[in-house]
Amino acid sequence: MARDDRGVTPQSEDFSTWYNEIVFKAELVDRGPVRGTMVFRPYGYRIWELLQADMDRRIKETGHVNAYFPLLIPESYLQREAEHVEGFAPELAVVTHAGGKELEEPLVIRPTSETVIGEMMSKWISSHRDLPMLLNQWANIVRWELRPRMLLRTTEFLWQEGHTAHAGEADATAETMLALDLYSHVARDVAAMPVVAGEKTAGERFPGAQRTFTVEGMMRDGRALQAGTSHFMGTNFARAFGIQYAAESGELEYCHTTSWGMSTRMVGGVIMTHGDDKGLVLPPLLAPYQVVIVPIGRGDQAERVLPSALDLSERLRRAGIRTHVDNRSHLSPGFKFNDWEMRGVPIRLELGPRDLADGSALMSTRLGTGKASVSLDSAPARLEFELASFQAALLWRATDFRDSHTRTVNSWDEFTEAVKTGWALALHCGQPECEDDIKAATQATPRCIPVEGAPDQGLCVRCNLPSAYGKRLIFGRSY
Amino acid sequence: MARDDRGVTPQSEDFSTWYNEIVFKAELVDRGPVRGTMVFRPYGYRIWELLQADMDRRIKETGHVNAYFPLLIPESYLQREAEHVEGFAPELAVVTHAGGKELEEPLVIRPTSETVIGEMMSKWISSHRDLPMLLNQWANIVRWELRPRMLLRTTEFLWQEGHTAHAGEADATAETMLALDLYSHVARDVAAMPVVAGEKTAGERFPGAQRTFTVEGMMRDGRALQAGTSHFMGTNFARAFGIQYAAESGELEYCHTTSWGMSTRMVGGVIMTHGDDKGLVLPPLLAPYQVVIVPIGRGDQAERVLPSALDLSERLRRAGIRTHVDNRSHLSPGFKFNDWEMRGVPIRLELGPRDLADGSALMSTRLGTGKASVSLDSAPARLEFELASFQAALLWRATDFRDSHTRTVNSWDEFTEAVKTGWALALHCGQPECEDDIKAATQATPRCIPVEGAPDQGLCVRCNLPSAYGKRLIFGRSY
Repeated sequence: MARDDRGVTPQSEDFSTWYNEIVFKAELVDRGPVRGTMVFRPYGYRIWELLQADMDRRIKETGHVNAYFPLLIPESYLQREAEHVEGFAPELAVVTHAGGKELEEPLVIRPTSETVIGEMMSKWISSHRDLPMLLNQWANIVRWELRPRMLLRTTEFLWQEGHTAHAGEADATAETMLALDLYSHVARDVAAMPVVAGEKTAGERFPGAQRTFTVEGMMRDGRALQAGTSHFMGTNFARAFGIQYAAESGELEYCHTTSWGMSTRMVGGVIMTHGDDKGLVLPPLLAPYQVVIVPIGRGDQAERVLPSALDLSERLRRAGIRTHVDNRSHLSPGFKFNDWEMRGVPIRLELGPRDLADGSALMSTRLGTGKASVSLDSAPARLEFELASFQAALLWRATDFRDSHTRTVNSWDEFTEAVKTGWALALHCGQPECEDDIKAATQATPRCIPVEGAPDQGLCVRCNLPSAYGKRLIFGRSY
Repeated sequence: MARDDRGVTPQSEDFSTWYNEIVFKAELVDRGPVRGTMVFRPYGYRIWELLQADMDRRIKETGHVNAYFPLLIPESYLQREAEHVEGFAPELAVVTHAGGKELEEPLVIRPTSETVIGEMMSKWISSHRDLPMLLNQWANIVRWELRPRMLLRTTEFLWQEGHTAHAGEADATAETMLALDLYSHVARDVAAMPVVAGEKTAGERFPGAQRTFTVEGMMRDGRALQAGTSHFMGTNFARAFGIQYAAESGELEYCHTTSWGMSTRMVGGVIMTHGDDKGLVLPPLLAPYQVVIVPIGRGDQAERVLPSALDLSERLRRAGIRTHVDNRSHLSPGFKFNDWEMRGVPIRLELGPRDLADGSALMSTRLGTGKASVSLDSAPARLEFELASFQAALLWRATDFRDSHTRTVNSWDEFTEAVKTGWALALHCGQPECEDDIKAATQATPRCIPVEGAPDQGLCVRCNLPSAYGKRLIFGRSY
């Protein structure tokens, strides 16, 4: 599938080709039969499962409960919120026939579930006692993609979507920020992606939202990836679907609602944040195999160390370390080393007859910091430490990369230079036309107004009008 | 939503009405906006999540890996296996337009995934070294239902579908039986449903399968519910999709494949196996709340015991017991008792000022065996025991019910009597026409040829021709 079994196009040479080759070669995904669709192969799906398990725990710990809503939504539902239908209409897949007949009303496959969940909330909510209603759903989503890209933009993808309803604006705003914070933590603490949390400008808002917040990660080509979004809807959807509650006063009020989503796109983000010329580099917390043991020796010798390799593997597994023994007898150790490097396994242990006699194994990490001997006796504790250290190193490296590719710019020349290789921190007038103009000239768009940005003001980096927002924006090219 | 807030139609009076009322009243599900679709509300979805977590663990422990395949399948794929398309064509939902255009080839929403997975397996499998390939996917499925019924037959449902490819018939047969055994254990050990495992007769096979196996549970109205199926495909799908491997000899061979699925229908099975006139009765292993604590006392008094209730709840939670404190201050204890009974919570603890002074709480189980005092100090250990005992009691009660509603019959009169209230164990000639004839006369169908049935032969209970199968079949009315 990839161009050459011996390697992939170096990342430094052509990032985009590197990415496309590596996702197939590492057996993360495959193309589905329908244009733009994707198959998650077991190795790729496992990364998603690990991320999902962590997110699900955090979502529940913050008081949300899972539910499941229908895939098929009457077309008319989308039309109830004008901006919403305008935003999603071009991407809809439409079911016109079912059960051997033409349907009276066409059904769309959910491109997101605000409408159907809004309809149900309007049935379920009647009193202030029913609020807040804090729902989450794990689901597949279909948006017809004209420029599909594996994991980043596919016709079908998997995600979680939180949908909440509140008794007041303050509560809903707090929820929007809580979800944003949850995403920052998942990205940073699990995927080792040092994302920046901020607000989208008006032009980049979710269709139907009053405010959209985002976490943006920097990929190793300097581009930004929107890794999760959290939307404050105000009463837009509540009005469209009649989500009302009786306040303590008895007065009927509209709810304020939010929605927030993070998707399988994160798997693409992990690849592009940490990968290198040799292939994937997986954060231990998301690695299907954290440690791979390769028995060493020709023919019989490898067979003889196998029981010890399996025993070591079992001890590591009991310590909670995801371990795999590569006992494929028809492949050479060298081939296996390259294979697991390409697949991004954090730590490799070689176990040969001499190591075994020594009571040790030879450890290499995917960060390429040389080989070290590890005592078999203390291997579980040692590897627990090495994996934690590896996870921390990835976050540090990615943070350093991001910071060294982010420039505070005060002139248009500095701006255009900065967005060629990374992000520009710039003042902007806030006019949509000026955003469009910047995009046409440089491909860069405002990624976000960072939540933690220091107060700043002056003139727009592009048009010299007075700056808006009271702080600098992050501009960058994106996926 | 249900007809009356004070109760539901008694099960004994009208089972079907009872079922429909209880699934809504207990807030398990709701109707979706599109006919035949269903919304899983949090309380119902949690039951599925608990079942799913257990199944996922068992599926992985038996060497399978999860993957994810596209929702949308080219219509032409289904046509490659003649029986398969014939079986599913009437139930398909078809996407004809997407991205604002009419599609060149219509796409169907997966009614099951043999075809798309077969296509991918044909790309991924080339050598005997690639086998067995043991895949599982958690997914939503759409089959257009003319007679929808909440949880049992809905236009969209959730399931897992295992799909495996093997180097020989023996391996594939063993896999088919392994999956069947997994389902028996999940049903019995988790859902407390004493299912019978057996083979379907030819007329009840999955479209495209050479052999179909099933686990059948008896509901409290005596009907059978097909709770999970496992299919041996022979080389049917391998030939349709070109799933071939080079054997060690170098010879190209077709794989033998299997598929097996268990769905959200199981939640309906749990309700109908254990429920009673008061509502749901949930097996502790699937109960969202295993223990509900109700603080007792008017006004301030209930407030005063609340800290102790929360403390008890926290101690139970730390012991792994899913506990909920019902501190709704606008509802009376009596209302709460009825509410949680109706929702099937296994154990209720009442905690009032006097209990507290005593260092105890008052325990009632959903099996209605009176109230007992429980020391707060030893509550975690005691409740762990009570829950295990409750789980065992449900399985025992359901087994007893099944056995007392199953009759070995040797005449047509006995047969017709038996299937009015339960199952008939009968000899049958094996002719499809005779099956049809029995169904027309009694609504009963052959549920399965039990794997563990003792050898037996004689004359067909209906037509007096010599019996087939070498053992008795289970006949019953079904869902």
